[in-house]
Amino acid sequence: MSEEDKKLSSGGLSRRSFLGTAAASGAGLAGMGLLGLAGCSENGKGGAGGAASGAASSSASTAEHKDYVGPGELDQYYAFSSGGQSGEIRVLGLPSMRELMRIPVFNMDSATGWGRTNESLRILNEHNTPETKEFLKRSNMPCLPNGDLHHPHMSFTDQTYDGRYIYANDKANNRVCRIRCDVMKTDKIVEIPNVSGVHGLRPQRYPKTGYVFANGEHIIPVGSEGKINDPKTWWSVYTAVDGETMQIAWQVMVDGNLDNGDADYQGKYSFSTCYNSERALDVQGASANEQDWCVVFNLKAIEDGIKAGDFKEINGVKVLDGRAQAKSAYTRYIPVPNSPHGCNASPDGKYIMLNGKLSPTVTVLDVSKLDDLFAGKIQPRDVVVAEPQLGLGPLHTAFDGRGFAYTTLFIDSQMVKWDIAKAIQAYKGEKVDPIVQKLDVHYQPGHNHTTMGETKEADGKWLVSLNKFSKDRFLNVGPLKPENDQLIDISGDEMKLVHDGPSFAEPHDMLLVAASKINPRRTWDRNDPWMWQDALEQAKKDGVELEKAAKVIREGKKVRVYMTAVAPVFSVPQFEVNLGDEVTVYVTNTETIDDLTHGFTLEGYGIAMEVAPQATASVTFTANRPGVHWYYCQWFCHALHMEMSGQMIVKS
Amino acid sequence: MSEEDKKLSSGGLSRRSFLGTAAASGAGLAGMGLLGLAGCSENGKGGAGGAASGAASSSASTAEHKDYVGPGELDQYYAFSSGGQSGEIRVLGLPSMRELMRIPVFNMDSATGWGRTNESLRILNEHNTPETKEFLKRSNMPCLPNGDLHHPHMSFTDQTYDGRYIYANDKANNRVCRIRCDVMKTDKIVEIPNVSGVHGLRPQRYPKTGYVFANGEHIIPVGSEGKINDPKTWWSVYTAVDGETMQIAWQVMVDGNLDNGDADYQGKYSFSTCYNSERALDVQGASANEQDWCVVFNLKAIEDGIKAGDFKEINGVKVLDGRAQAKSAYTRYIPVPNSPHGCNASPDGKYIMLNGKLSPTVTVLDVSKLDDLFAGKIQPRDVVVAEPQLGLGPLHTAFDGRGFAYTTLFIDSQMVKWDIAKAIQAYKGEKVDPIVQKLDVHYQPGHNHTTMGETKEADGKWLVSLNKFSKDRFLNVGPLKPENDQLIDISGDEMKLVHDGPSFAEPHDMLLVAASKINPRRTWDRNDPWMWQDALEQAKKDGVELEKAAKVIREGKKVRVYMTAVAPVFSVPQFEVNLGDEVTVYVTNTETIDDLTHGFTLEGYGIAMEVAPQATASVTFTANRPGVHWYYCQWFCHALHMEMSGQMIVKS
Repeated sequence: MSEEDKKLSSGGLSRRSFLGTAAASGAGLAGMGLLGLAGCSENGKGGAGGAASGAASSSASTAEHKDYVGPGELDQYYAFSSGGQSGEIRVLGLPSMRELMRIPVFNMDSATGWGRTNESLRILNEHNTPETKEFLKRSNMPCLPNGDLHHPHMSFTDQTYDGRYIYANDKANNRVCRIRCDVMKTDKIVEIPNVSGVHGLRPQRYPKTGYVFANGEHIIPVGSEGKINDPKTWWSVYTAVDGETMQIAWQVMVDGNLDNGDADYQGKYSFSTCYNSERALDVQGASANEQDWCVVFNLKAIEDGIKAGDFKEINGVKVLDGRAQAKSAYTRYIPVPNSPHGCNASPDGKYIMLNGKLSPTVTVLDVSKLDDLFAGKIQPRDVVVAEPQLGLGPLHTAFDGRGFAYTTLFIDSQMVKWDIAKAIQAYKGEKVDPIVQKLDVHYQPGHNHTTMGETKEADGKWLVSLNKFSKDRFLNVGPLKPENDQLIDISGDEMKLVHDGPSFAEPHDMLLVAASKINPRRTWDRNDPWMWQDALEQAKKDGVELEKAAKVIREGKKVRVYMTAVAPVFSVPQFEVNLGDEVTVYVTNTETIDDLTHGFTLEGYGIAMEVAPQATASVTFTANRPGVHWYYCQWFCHALHMEMSGQMIVKS
Repeated sequence: MSEEDKKLSSGGLSRRSFLGTAAASGAGLAGMGLLGLAGCSENGKGGAGGAASGAASSSASTAEHKDYVGPGELDQYYAFSSGGQSGEIRVLGLPSMRELMRIPVFNMDSATGWGRTNESLRILNEHNTPETKEFLKRSNMPCLPNGDLHHPHMSFTDQTYDGRYIYANDKANNRVCRIRCDVMKTDKIVEIPNVSGVHGLRPQRYPKTGYVFANGEHIIPVGSEGKINDPKTWWSVYTAVDGETMQIAWQVMVDGNLDNGDADYQGKYSFSTCYNSERALDVQGASANEQDWCVVFNLKAIEDGIKAGDFKEINGVKVLDGRAQAKSAYTRYIPVPNSPHGCNASPDGKYIMLNGKLSPTVTVLDVSKLDDLFAGKIQPRDVVVAEPQLGLGPLHTAFDGRGFAYTTLFIDSQMVKWDIAKAIQAYKGEKVDPIVQKLDVHYQPGHNHTTMGETKEADGKWLVSLNKFSKDRFLNVGPLKPENDQLIDISGDEMKLVHDGPSFAEPHDMLLVAASKINPRRTWDRNDPWMWQDALEQAKKDGVELEKAAKVIREGKKVRVYMTAVAPVFSVPQFEVNLGDEVTVYVTNTETIDDLTHGFTLEGYGIAMEVAPQATASVTFTANRPGVHWYYCQWFCHALHMEMSGQMIVKS
């Protein structure tokens, strides 16, 4: 029996009993399947019929309506919610939990033309690997049409949010994006080579971002030594992206599937939990070992290694060997119970919490001991200063800045509030109970997040629990249910549930930022044409001033149509092309009035794009459909909005 | 001076002064541009700095928090919101105004695979015209990637919602969709030939739906007589789709741009407002005439005309001639002031409201007089029984079932409540004021809708104002702002604003249905495989039972992979194909637990699909990217969710 098992058993909880008959058999997995939802059927009264009881039990805790934001009142926080498999980021207001905006990122968006306009295609494809470029060409795809956006995080300066950027990952296609907070649009997307399944993502906190760390989850053949038919030669890779240039700074090859990560508050170390240290390919194998680990990355050692040339260049990236077998200066492997999941730095900068998932514990690392660990003065487990037993399925931990931690219990469908100092005392053997309160959530929580909680300015006002199932909490909308983002008031001694927020598939994480940290523009800046730089260049070549344009330029079979949009007219009310012409339409919105967005929709051609005030947008297509095709503004901009239209005549 | 102008002037309002110097000049249009937003800058204090005052002024009206729905409590109404240019339909709960679900329709959706799965592509492309099929082929597009969904309406039986279907239009690509309310998914999409810009859409109310009426907005060359370079030969077309079969029943060629429509409560007539009776191609020309009209369609006469063979078959559709010049039995043209917009039948079945847009009036038609109009016993304007002056920019009217009407004033940024009976008295010359109350909304309202308000069961509880601008009502999210769907309590004598609901571009209409009218399924029905009928057929040929499948079948260069998904395993953990193979993956979710959705995401291939409990989904692609590609479940389904994965190995 391992140390961990002994501790679990002494606490009345054993990982073996938790996993049921979880030997590597089908029956064992089915058992886990039921267990995985036990909390759900318990709290939800098994689905149908449970709604009424849910309502009754909640009324006491909601008497204050603290989440209420009246008409015209402003929210106090921006919430940046990952859109998960929707590929987008959502901007919510908190505490009202209303969706204020969607930011298309790794998806195609019908409204704004993201994935269809020239500007978005440049951003989507600019940093594709050669393999992806070849794939898109073979597949006749203008871009990858989907993504799985898990972890949005803001850029930091001096341990707190600086309002410049949001970074996030795409697990489906191994990409990292950057969103400019001044206009709330994606400005960079970079594909990460040598990895599969970019899952965890976190920015460097100090002195600033700096690095953006991205976890390669799955093992694959990396470089020339990896053989496609020999999984023994497959590895996973940890990546540091330069958050300023969005170039890949370096990669480290590691052992096991990297799950979630975080960075310290000192700018010295970063961390990743690791499941499947077995490097197995199936679920039985991947959860066989008693322990997995947390990998600690030594940033200075890695930078020194790069300088010293201790890397292989694989697909254009400097890759260091940080595998356990390499015993390098770059990494340390700290054993923790089987399959840890979330990884969270406490806002006092002292601790890293590793959430147990298949263990009822959270393992607490003391960051101040890491120098000694890397110096070989202590053993890996000596860094552990607490390992409280909290309940079944701990996934993520958030903080209030007052010394308390809040951990989601996936299987128990609960949020547990616990005292970090007491957990450390208990680990030393003192008879104290770190658990302060357990609150039912509905149901199966994954990530959680507190207001400013991942910064040194954690303010302890609100906690959001991102629940994976909603079951009977909302009007039934058919077999596909919303998730449930629940808002919890943590400003007092007790957690109080105040709001159920349904959400489309599937927020993995949600960043809660004080409104004062961000100051977006009200219109685009014509003096900062980063989005339409190509259009500006072409216009110059054509002798056209975008802001005053009403011009059709033909060059062989290429036609360029330049127009402005001012309610309720396009400056080019009609243009004519020949069947087969390659047509580019540039639309510049010259409105100076706040919120006066126009659009350009071309009927029957699958084309629509947003053109917000002072922006230019463009789209290129082949005129391969003859006849009269109306174009119109799809944003209701004026009493004569419907009259804001024109015709493209395609002669065959 | 026309009759309308005289009335306008006598009321202190003149259309000319409203339009400023609106002669057909650029300066005039600029004047309209400013006027179009006058209400906005007035109410919003010109943008920046207005938020605080907005908050202060709203607090009095929101003291009751009547929109508050506590955690676990259920909403009382389903709201089906058009997603506008997002191409989707959104299901909201009311009064909380929370988004419960998105239904992908005319868009591509990264989360569910809509536009990528075989099932969705069948539905998206099944009823394309030959021209669109050819266009997609030439353009290498699997489907049209966008849409502009304006008007969702539910199927009726006996003058009220029957809970079966939602119908809606795509203005961008001339399509009509149908959504099955039992599973909240799109089951049919039909492209309408011979039209451009399908705008207004309404279902027949009695005896049931029946017809779904779709307005062709723009004039185009229709059939062999329309010449591409001669706009004098262009016409617009009104379409009736059979709501059961989703086949096109008939079309009627008409005069002018059809805008919004409605049907009566008796099953005899349908209506469409019409702007641009001038059949001009630009905004100046389109608003030149003093009057436009409402077209009334006589359903019996049209059906008789079809029987009598009085039609031309154009692109496979029977098209009747209902143009003004034809003086046919099918249509009547009722003159109304310049550019009417919304068209709304009152729930007592007696009246049709035509909203003035460029006139401050709403024109009220008495449905009972239409028999006489078609019989030639009275003149068109004799059908008008009221024409109250309400304010600037009336766009749409909703009803409470108690004799009051609620009209949005786009330019005034107000909702006006008025008394229908008094408006009729006033039109007769009695000295009564029909206006009951005007309420500021924020800002520029388009459609409005009341709970059950377009049925005989109008209950007068809630009114939603769908405002086109939000300006300073929410935290600033950059140049692109949300719209603002405001909730107004109309249950008492006074309208009270209770909630600001931000929404992504751009809800055009919102259907408010009592929760009791709809009863969605909790899982899919394996005995009703309409969605995966092709998969079922292929599986039978392959001797595979979808619900128990774990099989890879090769047929030349075609590979079919059949697997099930049960948390946390796919029944096929790995499969191998050759570069260039055409691969189809079929995934069947055999979970019986409510809400236990799985997904299938294939890394690096741009593939992700939703597989809800008891559903089958499939996707076909060419294996044109060599190497190891992990697939995984993208719905967080289990504590071992991350381990629910497998590998596709593509050998080159």
